[in-house]
Amino acid sequence: MPLPRIDLNADLGEGVGDDTAMMPLISSANIACGFHAGTPTVLLHSCREAVRYGVRIGAQVSYPDLAGFGRRFIDVVPEDLIADVLYQVGALTALAAAAGGDVSYVKPHGAMYNTVVDHEMQARALVDAVARTGLALMCLPGSAAQRFARESGVPVITEAFADRGYTRTGTLVPRSEPGALLTDSDEIAARVVELARTGRISAVDGTVVEADAESVCLHGDTPGAVAHARAVRAALAEAGVDVAAR
Amino acid sequence: MPLPRIDLNADLGEGVGDDTAMMPLISSANIACGFHAGTPTVLLHSCREAVRYGVRIGAQVSYPDLAGFGRRFIDVVPEDLIADVLYQVGALTALAAAAGGDVSYVKPHGAMYNTVVDHEMQARALVDAVARTGLALMCLPGSAAQRFARESGVPVITEAFADRGYTRTGTLVPRSEPGALLTDSDEIAARVVELARTGRISAVDGTVVEADAESVCLHGDTPGAVAHARAVRAALAEAGVDVAAR
Amino acid sequence: MPLPRIDLNADLGEGVGDDTAMMPLISSANIACGFHAGTPTVLLHSCREAVRYGVRIGAQVSYPDLAGFGRRFIDVVPEDLIADVLYQVGALTALAAAAGGDVSYVKPHGAMYNTVVDHEMQARALVDAVARTGLALMCLPGSAAQRFARESGVPVITEAFADRGYTRTGTLVPRSEPGALLTDSDEIAARVVELARTGRISAVDGTVVEADAESVCLHGDTPGAVAHARAVRAALAEAGVDVAAR
Amino acid sequence: MPLPRIDLNADLGEGVGDDTAMMPLISSANIACGFHAGTPTVLLHSCREAVRYGVRIGAQVSYPDLAGFGRRFIDVVPEDLIADVLYQVGALTALAAAAGGDVSYVKPHGAMYNTVVDHEMQARALVDAVARTGLALMCLPGSAAQRFARESGVPVITEAFADRGYTRTGTLVPRSEPGALLTDSDEIAARVVELARTGRISAVDGTVVEADAESVCLHGDTPGAVAHARAVRAALAEAGVDVAAR
Repeated sequence: MPLPRIDLNADLGEGVGDDTAMMPLISSANIACGFHAGTPTVLLHSCREAVRYGVRIGAQVSYPDLAGFGRRFIDVVPEDLIADVLYQVGALTALAAAAGGDVSYVKPHGAMYNTVVDHEMQARALVDAVARTGLALMCLPGSAAQRFARESGVPVITEAFADRGYTRTGTLVPRSEPGALLTDSDEIAARVVELARTGRISAVDGTVVEADAESVCLHGDTPGAVAHARAVRAALAEAGVDVAAR
Repeated sequence: MPLPRIDLNADLGEGVGDDTAMMPLISSANIACGFHAGTPTVLLHSCREAVRYGVRIGAQVSYPDLAGFGRRFIDVVPEDLIADVLYQVGALTALAAAAGGDVSYVKPHGAMYNTVVDHEMQARALVDAVARTGLALMCLPGSAAQRFARESGVPVITEAFADRGYTRTGTLVPRSEPGALLTDSDEIAARVVELARTGRISAVDGTVVEADAESVCLHGDTPGAVAHARAVRAALAEAGVDVAAR
Repeated sequence: MPLPRIDLNADLGEGVGDDTAMMPLISSANIACGFHAGTPTVLLHSCREAVRYGVRIGAQVSYPDLAGFGRRFIDVVPEDLIADVLYQVGALTALAAAAGGDVSYVKPHGAMYNTVVDHEMQARALVDAVARTGLALMCLPGSAAQRFARESGVPVITEAFADRGYTRTGTLVPRSEPGALLTDSDEIAARVVELARTGRISAVDGTVVEADAESVCLHGDTPGAVAHARAVRAALAEAGVDVAAR
Repeated sequence: MPLPRIDLNADLGEGVGDDTAMMPLISSANIACGFHAGTPTVLLHSCREAVRYGVRIGAQVSYPDLAGFGRRFIDVVPEDLIADVLYQVGALTALAAAAGGDVSYVKPHGAMYNTVVDHEMQARALVDAVARTGLALMCLPGSAAQRFARESGVPVITEAFADRGYTRTGTLVPRSEPGALLTDSDEIAARVVELARTGRISAVDGTVVEADAESVCLHGDTPGAVAHARAVRAALAEAGVDVAAR
């Protein structure tokens, strides 16, 4: 029987957070592509660090919104979204290649991530763009993007959030409600172990729900992110869970 | 004995000039990459048009200078220039692939084009970046960039300018001097035919100089550009010169 | 009895359309502020031309969206919208002052213009920002922005569109429906004269509706814009209508 | 006899460094204007903090170079530099006014600061722009910008650098040489006290040189900046030196 295994991902190349400390702790790096953060020089450096630590590289694509860090919905038409995603993935692919690596998946950032949960037109455009790159799509389980990706034969990497509370139906607790955000490193670590070993996660009301997640997102830019990541790694090691991208 | 042959290139995807009229007249399109002009949507459209007309695609890379249309020297360090070029070439490569084509060469735009004639540090950085992409470099004959490209084994596409005057030593007449710019379509056409058939070009003083040029640049964004291009095509056809990229 | 009078406005400084031809034909120039188009150099030039022709200057503020020409809705929070508007108005104010003029009003551009018709949170934020500048707001009659402006004591300049069809209730015919756009210069000119003399405009179904409009927008960037503007000026002159900002 | 007095300035609104800790320690804030750093929302917040602490506001203008943080020389023509400076000063002026304050001076940032020491064309353009705003110019003593400002009647605020070594002729020790950068808080504090009390500063070779400086720059974005600033304030208080902008 194989060891239980989980992928740990974090956002890097954004010029916020401590990339150097985070990189050795994760197995997948969502590297920015310049539309919400990151200059080419910074992104190339992130790619080099990822290659150095054997970390899988994902292209974290965004709306063109440097001023808003990609956190604001933009009502882009499918034609624009497709071209924007191709442009960003291509740019990061060239930088990753120069670093001796390659891009394995696409993860939408910020407002685009949330939009493609429900906004079918943008979700379909995102999937159309990813399909042309031949890469996988990292997204929220149950999202419109996941559904379209399956229909289009685009490989999906589902993810859970280490520091977010879940409702009893398996969705994220809205940020405006109690229990939305976990801040205790030990609690976060315990949840990731639970998820990796059982495929289930404890909801805010104490029930235990199925979690369809091959990867767990450790937020790279929140206070305590590195401390949380270290606690998660230690707990996974103790529990005999392998941390790896695939 | 093969037909004489010449490549005709022009700058496209910049949102100035008449791309639709120019595309059928050229054999190589220098497509902008978003740093001096062009949104991803516009660039994808340009790639599609190039594929439709069987036109070779080049990545026209620039300093990051949307406000100045890439026409201003920026004192970038080699590390930044390399990352900027890789980013742009990668972005256009993904768009070209989505259009069913590929990028064949890199041409520096505007101030970068002129800088790499003499500025050895930037010229070397540009060549380093192009070397990593495996593409050819289009540049001015006699430039530092051409010299470094040869040393690095990067294929070079040398170019002449259809509408620029040449001195008796084969360099361009500075724009501030008389004879720098040709505006008569027939004269421009006659010079391109001369160059294609003899490998030589008439200088402003009437002497005839050797011109090392596999490609001729038809400026895409100047007034009369389309009229000049049509005159050049007609004159080349009459003279039995083939227009093709390679 | 005073002459009937109407203000004619157009969008300038955007690098599209023929500013030089349009400026002498209008009485108010909506000058871009760099967020959807226009470099400081271009905007300063537009301000100088406006001063030269005695044309009133308005700050045409936009979402930060150079790639989309400000035509895409961005879900900005009020805090960001207020700061964005102040920044743009301040920038244009300094350029206008250097040109010997001043900014008289604020007009939202593109997607922001349409958004503040119904989106109360953004409409209120826009009005809050304009209130701090002490300027007037040019907007659509009946819009949320107009309502909030009145409540806040912000002077309002209502406008009609010379080349858009109106429904029998006085709203614009949606662009997806027949009659949305007028393209005949004479018809456009006749409507502007009708509006200036009677305060009413003919709807697509032949009824005549009240039009609350102190200014008429001549689109500066559409094909035929200059021809339409010339026809409008000629028709107004013949009808004895004065063209002036106030 | 009045107390000796010195102005302390630092760069803020750049999204690096600890603005909140720095603001109460200084008497002049060089606030970014969006061309090298800072969104309108961030800049408005910085203006509010400056007003809250009674700190004088300066507009820290830059080349348009977000990717390079304004640290790279750009060969802009005077026309562009003038328009860029007016645009930035105007934008910050509107934000400062909304915060209940005003802009008192202009300080060039990064590469522009260094360029206007020697580059006469850009220095003159900068002074021309500042002259139109009616503000003072903060610059290096002995720079071309200072000379042109005096000729044009533009008030000048000369500055010294708390953490930079000086040569025996009163110029800064180049960063590539030993003694260029001071890192010890006590030594930095002692030098600022010396300067405030005597108008002189100790050079790297032990000689004491005249320093023409009304303001001392505390770098806001270097490691230890806040600690240095606190040491400087404490030492000035002990020495009976008043910290104030004018």
